[in-house]
Amino acid sequence: MENIKNYFSKSRVETFSDGVFAIIVTLLVLEIKVPHIDLHDNSSDLLKALIGLLPKFISWIISFFTVCVIWVNHHRLFKIFYIFNHGLFWWNAILLMWCSFIPFPTAVLGDYPDNQMAVLLYGIVMMFMALTFSLMRIYAANRKSLLSSEIDISKFKKGTIFSIIFGPVLYLAGAIGSFIHPYLSFAIYLGIAIYFIFPHSTEDIELKSE
Amino acid sequence: MENIKNYFSKSRVETFSDGVFAIIVTLLVLEIKVPHIDLHDNSSDLLKALIGLLPKFISWIISFFTVCVIWVNHHRLFKIFYIFNHGLFWWNAILLMWCSFIPFPTAVLGDYPDNQMAVLLYGIVMMFMALTFSLMRIYAANRKSLLSSEIDISKFKKGTIFSIIFGPVLYLAGAIGSFIHPYLSFAIYLGIAIYFIFPHSTEDIELKSE
Amino acid sequence: MENIKNYFSKSRVETFSDGVFAIIVTLLVLEIKVPHIDLHDNSSDLLKALIGLLPKFISWIISFFTVCVIWVNHHRLFKIFYIFNHGLFWWNAILLMWCSFIPFPTAVLGDYPDNQMAVLLYGIVMMFMALTFSLMRIYAANRKSLLSSEIDISKFKKGTIFSIIFGPVLYLAGAIGSFIHPYLSFAIYLGIAIYFIFPHSTEDIELKSE
Amino acid sequence: MENIKNYFSKSRVETFSDGVFAIIVTLLVLEIKVPHIDLHDNSSDLLKALIGLLPKFISWIISFFTVCVIWVNHHRLFKIFYIFNHGLFWWNAILLMWCSFIPFPTAVLGDYPDNQMAVLLYGIVMMFMALTFSLMRIYAANRKSLLSSEIDISKFKKGTIFSIIFGPVLYLAGAIGSFIHPYLSFAIYLGIAIYFIFPHSTEDIELKSE
Repeated sequence: MENIKNYFSKSRVETFSDGVFAIIVTLLVLEIKVPHIDLHDNSSDLLKALIGLLPKFISWIISFFTVCVIWVNHHRLFKIFYIFNHGLFWWNAILLMWCSFIPFPTAVLGDYPDNQMAVLLYGIVMMFMALTFSLMRIYAANRKSLLSSEIDISKFKKGTIFSIIFGPVLYLAGAIGSFIHPYLSFAIYLGIAIYFIFPHSTEDIELKSE
Repeated sequence: MENIKNYFSKSRVETFSDGVFAIIVTLLVLEIKVPHIDLHDNSSDLLKALIGLLPKFISWIISFFTVCVIWVNHHRLFKIFYIFNHGLFWWNAILLMWCSFIPFPTAVLGDYPDNQMAVLLYGIVMMFMALTFSLMRIYAANRKSLLSSEIDISKFKKGTIFSIIFGPVLYLAGAIGSFIHPYLSFAIYLGIAIYFIFPHSTEDIELKSE
Repeated sequence: MENIKNYFSKSRVETFSDGVFAIIVTLLVLEIKVPHIDLHDNSSDLLKALIGLLPKFISWIISFFTVCVIWVNHHRLFKIFYIFNHGLFWWNAILLMWCSFIPFPTAVLGDYPDNQMAVLLYGIVMMFMALTFSLMRIYAANRKSLLSSEIDISKFKKGTIFSIIFGPVLYLAGAIGSFIHPYLSFAIYLGIAIYFIFPHSTEDIELKSE
Repeated sequence: MENIKNYFSKSRVETFSDGVFAIIVTLLVLEIKVPHIDLHDNSSDLLKALIGLLPKFISWIISFFTVCVIWVNHHRLFKIFYIFNHGLFWWNAILLMWCSFIPFPTAVLGDYPDNQMAVLLYGIVMMFMALTFSLMRIYAANRKSLLSSEIDISKFKKGTIFSIIFGPVLYLAGAIGSFIHPYLSFAIYLGIAIYFIFPHSTEDIELKSE
């Protein structure tokens, strides 16, 4: 009973987070504005204008699936958490802050797809987002009482190291790749999203073997 | 226990999806901007300006009910699903991607209702959305463990064929109809929405007869 | 078991509706744009600009509390409903359609507070919204199986008549009032919202007396 | 049974409130528009333009964490509430009204960070928001039946006095500070947010000692 006020209802943190993810994923498309054409009923002009929006469509799709991937990782991590204390809540808040920021670098990227700074900005924001995930894991790994009893702590720690490499490190590589060519970064960002879409055997390492 | 990490909490996938649907349905109206009139207090000018927004009101209503119909189908399909694996989650994500895109073709249609390309774009996006529904059913039909035990698989498969015809095929027909006249497509799109608003006897074919 | 597919999960309809209400209520403020002033650091210019936004603040507050009142009525009605069939779902969808439209007449009213057409539009949209509430009640009153067993049907029907008078009829009166003076309508719209904020003894008439 | 219709489902009030908070927190970033640069692929121009957005980033971060802090306080208060009557629902609605307004003063602050009126407006809105929290506590403190039986009323009342000082009074001080220098207010607003991020021993005073 003593510390009940310092713990959070997991379901409300989940509802709040799911709400944020659902809104981000839906708002992304609002950055794609209806193109203006002079002749209202000229279909080839409209087609050309739509094709001109291609960089925006691509950056939208990358961000859409990236946010879905974040949701999947968030869902997986929340299954591991048993209870939320103040610290875990605020790590989650910082994570949601980076996530809610994603529409901005996505819009910048859609407007300036061939600008190295736009590609760099996107990668750096994603790097900080992924880094927050890893820091949240490190924070939890040192506080066993926050974790589900089904978790094998040493395997969870190995999974944390794995999350650092396939998260912030890869995004940093993608960001640095922009100094060679923006499209190299694009490929790395898309690659990270695709990589996480498919389940990997490593994902189960955190569970106790029975 | 072995694969617990590869399965998703159905309630969180539902909350996330419901959030996305609620946002789409509410955002649609934001594309209708307040008209500008020069004489602030001239009521007949404002009336004329509001009447000029009629195509936007119509495309908004069609999209509103279409998203509600999608929600109903989504709800029906989720009742059939027993558990969510990675594959089903990503089919759902692709479905939500097409759904979250709907405000864009709706806005294009509202701005250029007499432009064949706008009508075509709307139909093609809806076709892919409906196709994703059918592919999601096909995916699930081949993985019995994902389905509720109350489902009659052979009837579920028949329902899937039905969903292909009354989904992507009809939307494709609507899109092609735009080559004859945009209003033909409008009528087909509205017709599909209205068709699905009323329940049909075919909807029960997937349940085991007792 | 026979008609399970024709019934809806009440909790998902609630989640979807609550999502729509939460979004409407929050989006309303987005129609108030940051005013432009020439001298960035001139505080009296900014104060004047903010005071100029007063009609927008007022229409925002009226709409905010109106949507909250709608939520309260929605919540009360959902307590009475036992199960959702297709018909009830679509009445709810039509209700949500009118609700999700509210940001538009609110924005029109905020831009043209002294334009009779803007005041009329607002009242007519609200009238249709309130009418949908009453029609939803009439639909349910004739289908006892949809209602909670705790409900006294004859009292529920009396409550329905009450809802017609204090809903669509009053809003229609407010809309017609705009032909006399816009501010008369404003007063009626605000009055309806305030009236519903306070609980009334009539609200309990639908419950069986024990 | 007698007054069942005058009480609200706590879970629906929570879902509605969580939805509003999730939307506010996510919408805040939409006020940061993609900057326009003339040379599309000039990375140093884009960097300069992004640096020029710094005041917007800072006001966004302050508001983001402030809304998270509000969510935490809201969560803590809702744990204390046992049941929702009409009065408590409307206090919560007034609180959500101030919260949903936050994107506006945040956007004003982001556009005019060196304008005393913008800084003052932000503080005054926050003061009213915080005041509503305290008034909600005072309202509940006088109606024991609304509170969880685990609460020590006299301690709850002490906590209420505490909430007045560290809420509206501090925000008022911040607002008044703008007459000395806008940055003093900035520091106080940020300070309040940071203060609440860390848990305090005083937070437990409302619980009965066992």
